[in-house]
Amino acid sequence: MSLRPLADRVIVKRLEEEKKSAGGIIIPDAAAEKPLKAEVIAVGPGKRTDDGKVHAPEVKKGDTVLIGKYSGTEVKVDGQDLVVLREDDILAVVA
Amino acid sequence: MSLRPLADRVIVKRLEEEKKSAGGIIIPDAAAEKPLKAEVIAVGPGKRTDDGKVHAPEVKKGDTVLIGKYSGTEVKVDGQDLVVLREDDILAVVA
Amino acid sequence: MSLRPLADRVIVKRLEEEKKSAGGIIIPDAAAEKPLKAEVIAVGPGKRTDDGKVHAPEVKKGDTVLIGKYSGTEVKVDGQDLVVLREDDILAVVA
Amino acid sequence: MSLRPLADRVIVKRLEEEKKSAGGIIIPDAAAEKPLKAEVIAVGPGKRTDDGKVHAPEVKKGDTVLIGKYSGTEVKVDGQDLVVLREDDILAVVA
Amino acid sequence: MSLRPLADRVIVKRLEEEKKSAGGIIIPDAAAEKPLKAEVIAVGPGKRTDDGKVHAPEVKKGDTVLIGKYSGTEVKVDGQDLVVLREDDILAVVA
Amino acid sequence: MSLRPLADRVIVKRLEEEKKSAGGIIIPDAAAEKPLKAEVIAVGPGKRTDDGKVHAPEVKKGDTVLIGKYSGTEVKVDGQDLVVLREDDILAVVA
Amino acid sequence: MSLRPLADRVIVKRLEEEKKSAGGIIIPDAAAEKPLKAEVIAVGPGKRTDDGKVHAPEVKKGDTVLIGKYSGTEVKVDGQDLVVLREDDILAVVA
Repeated sequence: MSLRPLADRVIVKRLEEEKKSAGGIIIPDAAAEKPLKAEVIAVGPGKRTDDGKVHAPEVKKGDTVLIGKYSGTEVKVDGQDLVVLREDDILAVVA
Repeated sequence: MSLRPLADRVIVKRLEEEKKSAGGIIIPDAAAEKPLKAEVIAVGPGKRTDDGKVHAPEVKKGDTVLIGKYSGTEVKVDGQDLVVLREDDILAVVA
Repeated sequence: MSLRPLADRVIVKRLEEEKKSAGGIIIPDAAAEKPLKAEVIAVGPGKRTDDGKVHAPEVKKGDTVLIGKYSGTEVKVDGQDLVVLREDDILAVVA
Repeated sequence: MSLRPLADRVIVKRLEEEKKSAGGIIIPDAAAEKPLKAEVIAVGPGKRTDDGKVHAPEVKKGDTVLIGKYSGTEVKVDGQDLVVLREDDILAVVA
Repeated sequence: MSLRPLADRVIVKRLEEEKKSAGGIIIPDAAAEKPLKAEVIAVGPGKRTDDGKVHAPEVKKGDTVLIGKYSGTEVKVDGQDLVVLREDDILAVVA
Repeated sequence: MSLRPLADRVIVKRLEEEKKSAGGIIIPDAAAEKPLKAEVIAVGPGKRTDDGKVHAPEVKKGDTVLIGKYSGTEVKVDGQDLVVLREDDILAVVA
Repeated sequence: MSLRPLADRVIVKRLEEEKKSAGGIIIPDAAAEKPLKAEVIAVGPGKRTDDGKVHAPEVKKGDTVLIGKYSGTEVKVDGQDLVVLREDDILAVVA
């Protein structure tokens, strides 16, 4: 099953996991709310500005990006944890 | 009875049900608030941008889409549970 | 007395009543907040977009529409309970 | 003393009074918050849209209109209770 | 010292004072929050709409206007109590 | 060290100080929240409207302006207390 | 690892640190919330206005800027504490 995002939405797969101890206890981490790296899985056609034109996103499939930890909506597809978010919620592309 | 949505509204039929036990008890599900699959039943003519033009939606009747569990307004028509939502509330099309 | 709505306002007459028991007690109804059917009584000239143009509404007098139970403002005219709402508050046209 | 409203403001005179008993007691009225009839006294030149054009209001002096009971700002002029409100706060014209 | 307001700001001098008894006690007044008359002292060049054009205000120096009692920002200049407010906060011109 | 403000930001130096008694006690002042005079130190290139054009500010370096006491962000540069604010937060130019 | 910001985002490196005593105690500082100096590390292509055009930022790599202490999102990259913020959150360029 593959997903095609609409408009300026982007689908990413997180590259960093929450740290848990072996026993499942969440380890407090002062940096736990720092942005996380994610890989772009799919990109929508882009945002439509008020003049009616659609502008292609600046990111493309395969890019590694930084996203806020709580940005977007989590989606579980075929056992994978994906995040659907707007391009505007992407902080930067990791080059 | 059929429904014709206005502007950028879309009518969908949920494809996944809330899990209930045989006795009607709702089973807690950690993933209970994850987006749900739905089938597009009807699509409005599209959103009008500030320049006065109408832009046809990116989804069409028959598409399977992911929507937020609490997106849109529930409508019961002929015994069917439908959801009327804006195209912008659709997270992705399942291909 | 007839009413002429302004701009993108629409006046409708509800087609479904709140359920009350014979003794006037309101019967709790799990679906009490579901959208209700209403008949369009009068339609304004339409919304003016930022480019200064007026766009005629998609609904017309006589249409049956679905509206949110608490949408718009109730008006009592000649003993009739009408609702004045914006076209954007109409969920769908019942065909 | 006469008043000239600015932009899309309209000045109206209420045609319905709050019900009070002879002794000055306010009589509770289930419909006390329903819209009230008012007569248009003066109309501004109209709203300016983002393209810089001014659009004349749809109401004119002498029209009877329905307004929300708490819409606009009350003004007492020469002993008359007037209401200054925006054209957009007028629900409908009574024909 | 004279003041030149910017953009769509207008500077006015109130023409009605709060009522105080001889001993300095504020007399409760049911109408204390009603709009007040003020004289226009200075007018800015006007508001710039999104198309980049500046539109001259509808009021001019010397006009008597109605303003909300708590509109704008009070400024004390050379012992005079002035109010700096936006043209949009002026309810009407008294003719 | 000099500062160059961006877009429609303006940097000013307050011309009036908070009143303190010799012993450092702040003297209550009924007018303590009234707008204060300030001198314009630097002006940005101006605001960009939605049509993409930049419009030069109405104030220039050296102007004396009235600003709200709590407008903008305080910046300490080379021992001087400056305020960075948007041109729209300037109430009037003192002529 | 280098970062490429999107749209009107800018990545900066703070030039001033929070003051801590040798023992790690945070020293209260009345000016602790004053804007801080930062060096621009990377600049996005610029903001797109409603007419669909992209406008290059006014700041460039290497500029020293003043930013609010709590502006933007902190990112830790290769042991460096960076801040991703919008160009509009930059108060001024230090010349």
